[in-house]
Amino acid sequence: MSAEQFRTEAHKVIDWIADYWATVGERPVLSTVEPGSVAEAVDGPIPDDPEPLEQVLSDVDRLLVPGLTHWQHPRFFAYFPANSSPAAVLGDLLSSGIGAQGMLWATSPSVSELEQVVLDQLARALGLSEAFCHRREDGSPGAGGGVIQDTASTATFTALLAALHRATGGRARTEGVESGRYTVYASSQAHSSLQKAAMMSGLGERAVRTIDVDAWTQQLDVAALAEALKADVAAGRVPVMVQACVGTTGTGAVDPVTEMGALAHRHGAWLHVDAAWAGVAALCPEHAWVNAGVAEHADSYVTNPHKWLLTTFDCSSFWVRDRSALVGALSILPEYLRNPASESGAVVDYRDWHPQLGRRFRAVKLWTVLRSYGLSGLRAHLRAGVAQAARVTGLVDADPRFTPAAPPCLGLVAFRLAADASGARLPDAEADRLTAALMTAVNTSGEAYLSHTQLSGRTVLRWAVGGWQTTAADVERTWQVLSDAADELLGHAAATPG
Amino acid sequence: MSAEQFRTEAHKVIDWIADYWATVGERPVLSTVEPGSVAEAVDGPIPDDPEPLEQVLSDVDRLLVPGLTHWQHPRFFAYFPANSSPAAVLGDLLSSGIGAQGMLWATSPSVSELEQVVLDQLARALGLSEAFCHRREDGSPGAGGGVIQDTASTATFTALLAALHRATGGRARTEGVESGRYTVYASSQAHSSLQKAAMMSGLGERAVRTIDVDAWTQQLDVAALAEALKADVAAGRVPVMVQACVGTTGTGAVDPVTEMGALAHRHGAWLHVDAAWAGVAALCPEHAWVNAGVAEHADSYVTNPHKWLLTTFDCSSFWVRDRSALVGALSILPEYLRNPASESGAVVDYRDWHPQLGRRFRAVKLWTVLRSYGLSGLRAHLRAGVAQAARVTGLVDADPRFTPAAPPCLGLVAFRLAADASGARLPDAEADRLTAALMTAVNTSGEAYLSHTQLSGRTVLRWAVGGWQTTAADVERTWQVLSDAADELLGHAAATPG
Repeated sequence: MSAEQFRTEAHKVIDWIADYWATVGERPVLSTVEPGSVAEAVDGPIPDDPEPLEQVLSDVDRLLVPGLTHWQHPRFFAYFPANSSPAAVLGDLLSSGIGAQGMLWATSPSVSELEQVVLDQLARALGLSEAFCHRREDGSPGAGGGVIQDTASTATFTALLAALHRATGGRARTEGVESGRYTVYASSQAHSSLQKAAMMSGLGERAVRTIDVDAWTQQLDVAALAEALKADVAAGRVPVMVQACVGTTGTGAVDPVTEMGALAHRHGAWLHVDAAWAGVAALCPEHAWVNAGVAEHADSYVTNPHKWLLTTFDCSSFWVRDRSALVGALSILPEYLRNPASESGAVVDYRDWHPQLGRRFRAVKLWTVLRSYGLSGLRAHLRAGVAQAARVTGLVDADPRFTPAAPPCLGLVAFRLAADASGARLPDAEADRLTAALMTAVNTSGEAYLSHTQLSGRTVLRWAVGGWQTTAADVERTWQVLSDAADELLGHAAATPG
Repeated sequence: MSAEQFRTEAHKVIDWIADYWATVGERPVLSTVEPGSVAEAVDGPIPDDPEPLEQVLSDVDRLLVPGLTHWQHPRFFAYFPANSSPAAVLGDLLSSGIGAQGMLWATSPSVSELEQVVLDQLARALGLSEAFCHRREDGSPGAGGGVIQDTASTATFTALLAALHRATGGRARTEGVESGRYTVYASSQAHSSLQKAAMMSGLGERAVRTIDVDAWTQQLDVAALAEALKADVAAGRVPVMVQACVGTTGTGAVDPVTEMGALAHRHGAWLHVDAAWAGVAALCPEHAWVNAGVAEHADSYVTNPHKWLLTTFDCSSFWVRDRSALVGALSILPEYLRNPASESGAVVDYRDWHPQLGRRFRAVKLWTVLRSYGLSGLRAHLRAGVAQAARVTGLVDADPRFTPAAPPCLGLVAFRLAADASGARLPDAEADRLTAALMTAVNTSGEAYLSHTQLSGRTVLRWAVGGWQTTAADVERTWQVLSDAADELLGHAAATPG
């Protein structure tokens, strides 16, 4: 494909995407293909001869689109928003075209330096404090700094490695981990990536202490955390990291970061704050409270622009207060990567900030998003999501059949079908069954996509708002589908008791 | 940015990329900006109001391009080729536009199933054997399978976790690692990612046994490996993984996979094959020898289409013979990810194949490349690189001043400046100094970019061919620059002895 052919073919792809976005709302959100059917359709060997791009695009439409669940659909309300956006797609396209590899500062200085600047910008806008910046306001170098990770799972894993490095005075990286000695703490609502990090780091699942939450707010119980820390220390174990959740996956609960930080530091443990979904909301002054305590207490903090901040996957922004712990845990300098800039200490080599060596120019994507929307545009997007979620909360509250399952937070509403049309409460097991059936009914209708969780053993629906193409009308339409499905299920339930 | 604005703006980005590729050969390959200068230039807060894309593109040209080292430059010969290509850029653009999240099969079935099919296609084309396929030729499900990782570092890390899972009967993930008990083996030429994997997994650096290589071929010494295994077992340690290198970073050496596999399995250890750069060459029948022994002996294997196979970063293809060990080490199923398809066991949930939970639709990029080039186009690209490298080898051999430092392999030639113009051998330390100075001279000329390594304490240049825009003329031109710089250095050295 020559440069001229590239121009022609690229325009076809651009048109394909613009058309896809314009019409995705007319498609069923959730794919209902059978396992194996897409593989069956695309099976066959690599062709011997080149095929025209038109053939590929035609096969995307014919063979792949039926098997897509459409994350950019305006009525995708499952899991969390995973915004693509025109600006991010173009920023990522630039990154692909430039094709620079930023493993070292020296292998493309702009890749590292733009990332430092953009993460400093974002740290300030999120209220994280100067302590997390590469460069302080007065121009002097900071002790901390930010890096773009692929996902919050990787951010949490590297936070744990940094914490372990600090707790062991560097012995963990050389000597390995002593089984049973180190412990990690988070609430029962923490994301599963913490457990995975414990598995991967050699600490093992049993190192993770699962702390109870308040049954209504779903916030970590600080007294229970204090007890757990005390018991482990008494038994000779070493608390390595406490993780606070800012916006849990289940219900968006925000843990008491300040109290947790004080406790963690009293025991010499690292405080990691997982704000993967909710943290970006702090760009709006009225939502800045979500990051309260981070500036004073966190050792590390992660939030994902690739979730609710319009920045196509992958782009997880991660900051540390003390980069020496992170770099100490991960740095290696083989001869073939040695260079004068690295040895001068004047540059950031991001290979030492994550598990991978290679890395693409993700900062240009985030930079394009921040500039194309501006703070005003980003805030408008976030506020639209919060307003739409408030409408969902209003509808839930006004309907006697539904009960909130936890306090709503920002764009996330957790609720369940818990009563009949008259408002008479259903037995818990029956409400579980009907709530799950309600989700299946909505999801298989093709009209919208919700997901679920369990709280205290009860089944709960999660309605996560925040799509970049979602409008108030999409919320109303989805509510109608949900309400009609509830009518049908309750009617059916009434007709066939038990 | 509306859909119509997106079309307009996207065309500007496409034109920017086409122009960049067309003119990149006229730019200095290696950026020579001072540390901090790019950051200084782009510094400032996030703007309040949206900025037009034109402003972003203009700033890319004005502020970022001077700080780029151009990996897509036709005379980029450092490290390894990291091919972008028109087809890959368009495939990745599709992935961004679709914006699907493939953490579970259920969250977008096409994302998982296309990946399974494409990796089966590639496994067959690379001669890895049916054992590494998701689906056998007869349609029955295999015990192994492939996954797209971000980098070979992650592939190696997950191979180690799978090996550890198998060696401990699953205890590592629950109980953690016992410091000092487990060992890992590879040659002194193995990539630093193995050491990093040992650090991250809790085994620690001291778990890694560095096995000597032959001083000329740089291949692992099998007898030394056997000794090391024996000594560890005698001391009560458990060999977990042996890593064979197919194309070392330094010189492209190919370890004796068959003998290493036999030894590894005799001790119950996992054989991981790191063919990150060289493995893709096996698409050409005449280079299929690089993967000899893999089909019979490897437990896992990685090669990176994002290096020499025209597939814009990131795309690292990784296969395992027994997926249950990998999935066993990494799977977690919290309530909010439960779904009927996962529970049926009939689907692949790729979240259990890597550290991350979230994942983008990378398979559509690789699929677009494989179809747009076809096997014939891919082979033509690989063969061009090998032919250009053979020309470099011929030039080195014909010039009395230069000495090969190891056997050339495929697209990689390692050599050093070791004699004066008359062919009289220089003292080793002087040859080291002049070889390093020669690299600096070439790289700062802006004409080409080479990198270096050390072999047995001696400084060696690495000339890595394989760029998608590289022609024979680029090789000749670079040789001229190199030869002229050597003239100057040797003349200067002769004038100022010592």
